[in-house]
Amino acid sequence: MTSLEELPLRPELRGKSPYGAPQLAVAHQLNTNENPYPLPKSLLADLGTALAGVAAGLNRYPDRDAVALRTDLATYLTRTSGEQVVVEKVWAANGSNEVLQQLLQTFGGADRTALGFTPSYSMHPIIAGSTSTAWVDGHRRADFTIDVDAAVAQVREVRPDVVFVTSPNNPTGTAVDLDTIAALYDATDGVLVVDEAYTEFARTGTVSALSLLPGRPRLVVSRTMSKAFGMAGLRLGYLAADPAVVEAVQLVRLPYHLSSLTQAAARAALAHTDELLATVEAVKAQRDRIVAALPALGLTSVPSDANFVLFGHFGDAHAAWQALLDRGVLVRDVGLPGWLRVTAGTLEETDAFLTALGEVAPSHRLGD
Amino acid sequence: MTSLEELPLRPELRGKSPYGAPQLAVAHQLNTNENPYPLPKSLLADLGTALAGVAAGLNRYPDRDAVALRTDLATYLTRTSGEQVVVEKVWAANGSNEVLQQLLQTFGGADRTALGFTPSYSMHPIIAGSTSTAWVDGHRRADFTIDVDAAVAQVREVRPDVVFVTSPNNPTGTAVDLDTIAALYDATDGVLVVDEAYTEFARTGTVSALSLLPGRPRLVVSRTMSKAFGMAGLRLGYLAADPAVVEAVQLVRLPYHLSSLTQAAARAALAHTDELLATVEAVKAQRDRIVAALPALGLTSVPSDANFVLFGHFGDAHAAWQALLDRGVLVRDVGLPGWLRVTAGTLEETDAFLTALGEVAPSHRLGD
Repeated sequence: MTSLEELPLRPELRGKSPYGAPQLAVAHQLNTNENPYPLPKSLLADLGTALAGVAAGLNRYPDRDAVALRTDLATYLTRTSGEQVVVEKVWAANGSNEVLQQLLQTFGGADRTALGFTPSYSMHPIIAGSTSTAWVDGHRRADFTIDVDAAVAQVREVRPDVVFVTSPNNPTGTAVDLDTIAALYDATDGVLVVDEAYTEFARTGTVSALSLLPGRPRLVVSRTMSKAFGMAGLRLGYLAADPAVVEAVQLVRLPYHLSSLTQAAARAALAHTDELLATVEAVKAQRDRIVAALPALGLTSVPSDANFVLFGHFGDAHAAWQALLDRGVLVRDVGLPGWLRVTAGTLEETDAFLTALGEVAPSHRLGD
Repeated sequence: MTSLEELPLRPELRGKSPYGAPQLAVAHQLNTNENPYPLPKSLLADLGTALAGVAAGLNRYPDRDAVALRTDLATYLTRTSGEQVVVEKVWAANGSNEVLQQLLQTFGGADRTALGFTPSYSMHPIIAGSTSTAWVDGHRRADFTIDVDAAVAQVREVRPDVVFVTSPNNPTGTAVDLDTIAALYDATDGVLVVDEAYTEFARTGTVSALSLLPGRPRLVVSRTMSKAFGMAGLRLGYLAADPAVVEAVQLVRLPYHLSSLTQAAARAALAHTDELLATVEAVKAQRDRIVAALPALGLTSVPSDANFVLFGHFGDAHAAWQALLDRGVLVRDVGLPGWLRVTAGTLEETDAFLTALGEVAPSHRLGD
């Protein structure tokens, strides 16, 4: 039996574990921010037709540039943001993780640095690592908001090649205002990536960074169909940016990276956008219900624009996580002392979570 | 309009063009080594059932470790190679390009070097570049075979972290004997990747490097379902290696990289292995027909174990390429002076190719 350590691994991978939440078989899986609603029947029928339409031709390579899919994504962004987004401004890949990896391969890499405001999406530093990009933790206030002056000063000092802002932020949940994003753009000569994976769940009045794209060729907005669209199993992420950015990532994308099935299925789903996004209001209602229920349990939360809530404070968050799991509710221990993250699911899932939390809170919440 | 050059691109990407053969609408597309046979009807029915079976649950993430699919791939390898291949020795990704990228992210990267014997699959140096891995061209003889003593000496001198051997080689077509592969393994402390994308088309008596895996934990054999299986549109590549290698690539793989649709479709196809691989003999027959027809046209070829033939010599290969294209036949100009590469297609495609070549050869072949 050969051990990992006997292989000529890159030194920074030694002793590491693969990224990923535990995939446990429990009654209520509220740990990976999935949309709890299965695809609607009308989409299932069209999806079957769309996949059958490409199946016989699977012996041929897919459209390398995924033009039809990118056109549909551009139409969706234009319709929902009010910005004029054309196909030349859109790129798509297997999940937003692959989009971010392509961006780091293009603008990061060896002898280059990326900076993101910690805590945030933990794949940002991991993908930086696997693309040989150095990583610097950006600072946040104790309440997890970004202090724009401090952030601008840090970016000016570090001079990163790529800056990540997650809005709404994961795992804390709060959206970032556009003034902060604009100031960070002005502070860097690098590429600013605004990761908007959860943006469709934002509270009323939150504006997408898409509106900042005109005149900012180094700004990139990344999105996904995994969350609001309820298509995590499809693996479809995308970005909007200046056409030059789209040209640039094509220098590093693996040729034919998006399968014919992925392209056809994503297009079928986009044709059902209104129906799919109808789940968003239901999810937001459960999120707000969780937020409202916490104070009576002696707990609090971070303001959420996402389909999840960061809640606390616990004396020992991991013990509280285990106590919830013992009651059949799997939430996420994101490694923030005192805090846990829960996905807003269905009414029934939220019932189960709040019931379990009611049992767990008295003995695990941080004493007053 | 922002130009690419105004963006903070990695310096080595400046002035580059995206990789990829021209996707032209012509009568006979013989330039990307696709399998010319559409999927059989019986598979189409099962594929529809398999995809429908996962569609409703697309709101959930796929199995991150693709265990069921990897088990089926292991079964296929065991059955066809006679070697005992278990699921722990198999890994899969979106095309063998992604497999190779993950290997370079694990064992290559910044401050590391990869070596491959040029001319070979042109994505090897490109993926090395996009993972910040330095690249060294290994030498071949003028007839495109690998001189094992010279290759071993070069590997000992360069001390690469990753060595690529493509067998059968692309674009030249010839398989590499196992003694050469074993000698290269002994010559390196790095990882030896044998890219067997075309192995199912090899001439009788050719043995897969799978038989060398026992006792060689730094040996990796990569495969694809794009060619013999006729599933280029599916994007499914895989590798077989020591279980420690599979553990290692999981440190860099993007989580949930293989969609639920991809996993389900690949499993459906593997259940029809015999039917899909029945096309291999027909393709080999057309390949051998091309090889046999060339001398009468004053042309020659490199011995082929693949579903393509490298043929020449031409005075100006690009002019010959254009002359064939003018006759509705798209072949590949792989940048080797005097040579072109043609995919072995159906009987009718081969007829069209040989007819066009008959018209083109007299004025374009290299004079005696």
